[in-house]
Amino acid sequence: MSVVHHFIKKTNAYTWENVDSTPLVVEGIKGAVKNILIGDNEGAPHFIMRYFELESGGHSLLERHPHEHEVIVLRGEGIVQIGQEKYTVTSYDAVFVEGDELHQFSNPHDEPFGFICIIPRLDPN
Amino acid sequence: MSVVHHFIKKTNAYTWENVDSTPLVVEGIKGAVKNILIGDNEGAPHFIMRYFELESGGHSLLERHPHEHEVIVLRGEGIVQIGQEKYTVTSYDAVFVEGDELHQFSNPHDEPFGFICIIPRLDPN
Repeated sequence: MSVVHHFIKKTNAYTWENVDSTPLVVEGIKGAVKNILIGDNEGAPHFIMRYFELESGGHSLLERHPHEHEVIVLRGEGIVQIGQEKYTVTSYDAVFVEGDELHQFSNPHDEPFGFICIIPRLDPN
Repeated sequence: MSVVHHFIKKTNAYTWENVDSTPLVVEGIKGAVKNILIGDNEGAPHFIMRYFELESGGHSLLERHPHEHEVIVLRGEGIVQIGQEKYTVTSYDAVFVEGDELHQFSNPHDEPFGFICIIPRLDPN
């Protein structure tokens, strides 16, 4: 089913029409909310578009897995660690994290840091 | 190879470091520029992230093909036709165009209309 999810402007976290915002309660993750913009609900067959928002001081897991990430930053500024390197990224920067690379996203700033992160389907991470 | 392409702020078309901007000279396409943010050059294995910008009056092909599109709008406002429906979309709206749906993106406004569009790999369209 083709679908349009209109963006909802909010003063705090970004949200979309008909898309759930799910705080991630997972050991090793802090201050992170996940929104699946295009996934199972829409019948996406090959890859899934998620939006993650990290509050001030928040971070994703420091992790490594076989699948890649394709990322485009939408708001704020943050840090992405890839391997042993750390990169400062800001709105509209594009990041490719190759499969099996150690990586982590973190937000050391006062403002929210939000980014689109796409993964291949059939993998929940 | 993991990579970061930093966004370059420009008054006119959006561009990224180390990413070519290619005007599309194709019958049925008008005023469109393509940027492959994450693709063959980065070794993306499963899906390709492109940024398209349509100038005022520009449009993509009215087309139908087996592969899907996952889209997130980055700038301006435009129209996406899916089947016989037309939707107005603006920054950060997310659009899923299912495979085999007739579709077209167009910009009837004065300002540029730009969006990320992801496709599965092994298909050049």
